[in-house]
Amino acid sequence: MLTHINKQNRPKMVDVTDKNDTNRVAIASGVITMSSEALNIVLQNRNKKGPVLQTAIVAAIQASKQTSTLIPMCHPLMLTSINCDIDELECGFKLTVEAKLKGKTGVEMEALTGVSVGLLTIYDMVKAVDKTMVIKDIKLLQKSGGKSGLYELDMSKT
Amino acid sequence: MLTHINKQNRPKMVDVTDKNDTNRVAIASGVITMSSEALNIVLQNRNKKGPVLQTAIVAAIQASKQTSTLIPMCHPLMLTSINCDIDELECGFKLTVEAKLKGKTGVEMEALTGVSVGLLTIYDMVKAVDKTMVIKDIKLLQKSGGKSGLYELDMSKT
Amino acid sequence: MLTHINKQNRPKMVDVTDKNDTNRVAIASGVITMSSEALNIVLQNRNKKGPVLQTAIVAAIQASKQTSTLIPMCHPLMLTSINCDIDELECGFKLTVEAKLKGKTGVEMEALTGVSVGLLTIYDMVKAVDKTMVIKDIKLLQKSGGKSGLYELDMSKT
Amino acid sequence: MLTHINKQNRPKMVDVTDKNDTNRVAIASGVITMSSEALNIVLQNRNKKGPVLQTAIVAAIQASKQTSTLIPMCHPLMLTSINCDIDELECGFKLTVEAKLKGKTGVEMEALTGVSVGLLTIYDMVKAVDKTMVIKDIKLLQKSGGKSGLYELDMSKT
Amino acid sequence: MLTHINKQNRPKMVDVTDKNDTNRVAIASGVITMSSEALNIVLQNRNKKGPVLQTAIVAAIQASKQTSTLIPMCHPLMLTSINCDIDELECGFKLTVEAKLKGKTGVEMEALTGVSVGLLTIYDMVKAVDKTMVIKDIKLLQKSGGKSGLYELDMSKT
Amino acid sequence: MLTHINKQNRPKMVDVTDKNDTNRVAIASGVITMSSEALNIVLQNRNKKGPVLQTAIVAAIQASKQTSTLIPMCHPLMLTSINCDIDELECGFKLTVEAKLKGKTGVEMEALTGVSVGLLTIYDMVKAVDKTMVIKDIKLLQKSGGKSGLYELDMSKT
Repeated sequence: MLTHINKQNRPKMVDVTDKNDTNRVAIASGVITMSSEALNIVLQNRNKKGPVLQTAIVAAIQASKQTSTLIPMCHPLMLTSINCDIDELECGFKLTVEAKLKGKTGVEMEALTGVSVGLLTIYDMVKAVDKTMVIKDIKLLQKSGGKSGLYELDMSKT
Repeated sequence: MLTHINKQNRPKMVDVTDKNDTNRVAIASGVITMSSEALNIVLQNRNKKGPVLQTAIVAAIQASKQTSTLIPMCHPLMLTSINCDIDELECGFKLTVEAKLKGKTGVEMEALTGVSVGLLTIYDMVKAVDKTMVIKDIKLLQKSGGKSGLYELDMSKT
Repeated sequence: MLTHINKQNRPKMVDVTDKNDTNRVAIASGVITMSSEALNIVLQNRNKKGPVLQTAIVAAIQASKQTSTLIPMCHPLMLTSINCDIDELECGFKLTVEAKLKGKTGVEMEALTGVSVGLLTIYDMVKAVDKTMVIKDIKLLQKSGGKSGLYELDMSKT
Repeated sequence: MLTHINKQNRPKMVDVTDKNDTNRVAIASGVITMSSEALNIVLQNRNKKGPVLQTAIVAAIQASKQTSTLIPMCHPLMLTSINCDIDELECGFKLTVEAKLKGKTGVEMEALTGVSVGLLTIYDMVKAVDKTMVIKDIKLLQKSGGKSGLYELDMSKT
Repeated sequence: MLTHINKQNRPKMVDVTDKNDTNRVAIASGVITMSSEALNIVLQNRNKKGPVLQTAIVAAIQASKQTSTLIPMCHPLMLTSINCDIDELECGFKLTVEAKLKGKTGVEMEALTGVSVGLLTIYDMVKAVDKTMVIKDIKLLQKSGGKSGLYELDMSKT
Repeated sequence: MLTHINKQNRPKMVDVTDKNDTNRVAIASGVITMSSEALNIVLQNRNKKGPVLQTAIVAAIQASKQTSTLIPMCHPLMLTSINCDIDELECGFKLTVEAKLKGKTGVEMEALTGVSVGLLTIYDMVKAVDKTMVIKDIKLLQKSGGKSGLYELDMSKT
């Protein structure tokens, strides 16, 4: 019976009303791989759409703030800090986002959303020269605050 | 004099700066009526655009979070819980949204906006088979928290 | 099997790529009922949050433009006209929205979304004096353009 | 080296996690100048797109709430009050927005964004009769709350 | 009578359904003035929030695309080009935005909105060192396309 | 010289005003890997936040429509079709999005953005049981329409 299915198996935003406000931090990263031609164009700022990495950082920060609009069951949160780094790799770039909040629920989705949109922005600005780019390794590196305490990715397993 | 009109009769977002943060809950519901043919298509999940009720619940939750963007004088709020149910009626569906917040102002508009957009989503997905659907009975069922305390709709009057 | 369910019964945005651009119009309306005390406050512009009806019209027009953001399976459309009227009733107000487009798909959801958010805006601005207001009779009055031609609500049946 | 530039000179949202919540107020204003013909049309409510000033006030309030979406490094904030006035000048209008918050960072960008979008709305609604309008004098008049205390614009210098 | 006022004097989005699609271009500019200390910090990229001008350009482009969300009576448009320049002045910066469209209505509001939000972004990133900045001279420089043909600001009058 | 840098190396939205409207299609996919415990919870619909895959599909479709808001240099586009599939893998799920448009520029970013946000939604709904999930292999599979014609990923190289 459909209504039964809906009542017992409906999507919902988990109730965090009674959780305490604690300092919460999450760090996520992801990678985009590209051809060496594309990489050189980015590094030499010769790209047709303009400077790639600064634009990606701005996009990542703005997207982090839009997380609860994009991910249906995410709570709206008032991020108190977003910080974004880009590292050059041999075959592309690694983008890292750290998000902070004093609030009732974790900010890992905000960090992961920033990473994803930052990498998509790099893709967009470079796609005219390389259609084979791949976005990968989007993962949570670290998370602290709240009842569950500190989480750190076990790098030996990755 | 126009400027007088504007000074004395301008829309404004009411000042809640000095209100206390309290636990606030609001429950609202609404109904969509449709033909039995349309109802059957929804219940049997044979709809051209896909499963109707799950999509409506996701839309309702996302819209609740957009309330202050849609309703001009609503305060931005950090909802801590949104829960949505759909009941099958003889002639359609009843959608109920419960919204919660620990904050300075009530969340009835968030519940009502979720209900409205959830019902519009059902309308959208079913309109190819029935253009005569009607959305109705959107109302506040219950509200608690804040200075005014508990409000419950007097069902005997409805 | 879950993947089967998803493949065969997934929500989707219907493909309108090959449809012709035609002039499309949709008219929808809805009603909000309120106490006579609340009605008088609106009509005399004595409301705490400011003038109600002008604010509702602006909100309705802005919401019509947000339809594809709110209703998951709606296509993004470039509305070419939105017009909104409010009629005073004995027990409240009737809000009517006409939306137009030269494009590939109908604009009834845009009209209905404008109506819903306009009525919610009235509710929001008046709720301090009346919590028993009800939003109802949200329906499509007329629709033209596209393959299905003219649709008009049969008023004798309502 | 580009990655060095990005690490050392990246845009970021400043970390306010450990700041105290205090009552914060900001007042900003700006001016739009127009021809006397345009001014008369606004004052007499004879404008083709409808009443100008009420629409501008609604737009200003809604834009204040969108500040962190528009200005990349702004923190999302839960404004507790927005109030907007329009004064008639000899050659146009002056729009003033006061924004309030109990929170961790100032609300001057929210007030300034409200002013800017309110003035743009006047421009939009009047541009059919005057393309030479100029928006100017957008500035912060006053700011209080937080560590830096009260700031008031020195009017003798302007 | 209020309903009369609403029927005759309501805000509306002007009907452009029957206009032809033509190539449309608009160029707008605006200025932000700041102290020489602030100007030097921007020019030397020593700003606490990161590089100012690149961030402002990204914000200007993104805001141009949000014009119909921000300005209530603006039509949604599919901009085909946005280009943004920043010129260094003795006492600040001048930001210029060119917007293009093949469509039914002009894009001056898109150019003006981009200018305004770009300048607000500069303000935001520099406000920690200078609260007396002023945004001014936001105006339409040029507009072409559509029935009204070419408009160019008469610079001798400004 | 900074202004030189900005003039010559500014981000911009590429001018597509004079391109022809052609039918354009893009297909992208991506993968999320998770523990077998997490996978079973998703497949048996025992997840705390509700049904995962249907919610992810709705989020993917809605995000595709928000691409030009998220990715700074993307053109606003009126997608005419979005279709989303999820395949069960041994260690997680593969999400595929097909986007279509009759327009002036390609829709690969729309497909890729849908994939990314759909996968993030799965992450969000499952993260309570598995924090080690990884999002990977986000790539363009196929693209057609426009001057560059058909592109298909060379699967032998991946």
